[in-house]
Amino acid sequence: MPRTQFTIALPDWCAVWLEERPAPCVTPQQRMRLVVELAQRHVDRQTGGPFAAAVFDATSGRVVSLGLNVVARSGLSIAHAEIVALSLAQGELQSFDLSAGASAPLQLVTSAEPCCQCYGAIHWSGIRSVVCGARASDVRQIGFDEGDKPLDWPDHLAARGIAVQQDVLREDAVGVLRRYAEQGGLIYNPAGRPAAG
Amino acid sequence: MPRTQFTIALPDWCAVWLEERPAPCVTPQQRMRLVVELAQRHVDRQTGGPFAAAVFDATSGRVVSLGLNVVARSGLSIAHAEIVALSLAQGELQSFDLSAGASAPLQLVTSAEPCCQCYGAIHWSGIRSVVCGARASDVRQIGFDEGDKPLDWPDHLAARGIAVQQDVLREDAVGVLRRYAEQGGLIYNPAGRPAAG
Repeated sequence: MPRTQFTIALPDWCAVWLEERPAPCVTPQQRMRLVVELAQRHVDRQTGGPFAAAVFDATSGRVVSLGLNVVARSGLSIAHAEIVALSLAQGELQSFDLSAGASAPLQLVTSAEPCCQCYGAIHWSGIRSVVCGARASDVRQIGFDEGDKPLDWPDHLAARGIAVQQDVLREDAVGVLRRYAEQGGLIYNPAGRPAAG
Repeated sequence: MPRTQFTIALPDWCAVWLEERPAPCVTPQQRMRLVVELAQRHVDRQTGGPFAAAVFDATSGRVVSLGLNVVARSGLSIAHAEIVALSLAQGELQSFDLSAGASAPLQLVTSAEPCCQCYGAIHWSGIRSVVCGARASDVRQIGFDEGDKPLDWPDHLAARGIAVQQDVLREDAVGVLRRYAEQGGLIYNPAGRPAAG
């Protein structure tokens, strides 16, 4: 019989790192600052792709969960930062619907605009708002593919009651992407390469 | 510190069930027959949503992995059948890219057309072809939401070298959906309900 379960885990350093952060993060900028620092640490430690995310209690600014791109270390293509952060938040709240399980609305803050997969996952997560740093064009600039999602994706999510704020500390988020590219980080699923290639 | 890992597992009965199946499955119809039976068993045992999938070695017809919708039992909104099957196949092959890790092209067979999240995940999985049973319209018919994906999504995937075949044993796959609805199965993320609702 083939295997019947899989696990996705953050690198061990994350727990200590978060304990050392000042809490809580009240503004979108403060939240993005934490997420960009998390992405930068991930790149510096070479523990994965240059993408980080976190779920916050939108009222108190408390960190509910962290997320990092751990595709390479987990061997799983779904393990993008947003998927990890949303799933860990659902684990924390013991509910597959973050809009039902939380005492306050929850917000996903991600260092880069979600790809087509994470855009889809946001639909089902129960998250109530999304804050993004780098744009998909910035991500493509260093060679990653982002897949096909509607150009007006923020409007699609807004129509479902999920507010999207873009370009928060965009330059800082782009700086992490550039650093990763400069140090020769792995670009899996590169843009322009057909999946069959 | 919030939790740092999560696990998604198939129900225990799957291993025994697969051992009792005739192997291998050579045609798309034989593969879909296995997947529809898997979905039906899942509904009968009330272990989750009425969706199943499997990854096959496209040449030999060997089952590489199974997938079931285990959103409710795992408490994770990403846990759709396609995500589970693709991730378990990647675990089996120890590669996040099924096009690189396999000795033969791999095929995803799913009892219902992928939602927007699973459509995105297919991009990054390395799967080389997709075979679908029920249509999104059939899934919506019993109340589930499918999210926003391009109407011409098979063409988008084809442009990336991923062939899509639709309507294989569609009526049988729809039968499982109807059975689930008739027995009052949980419809989470219902169509027409805004995520903020």
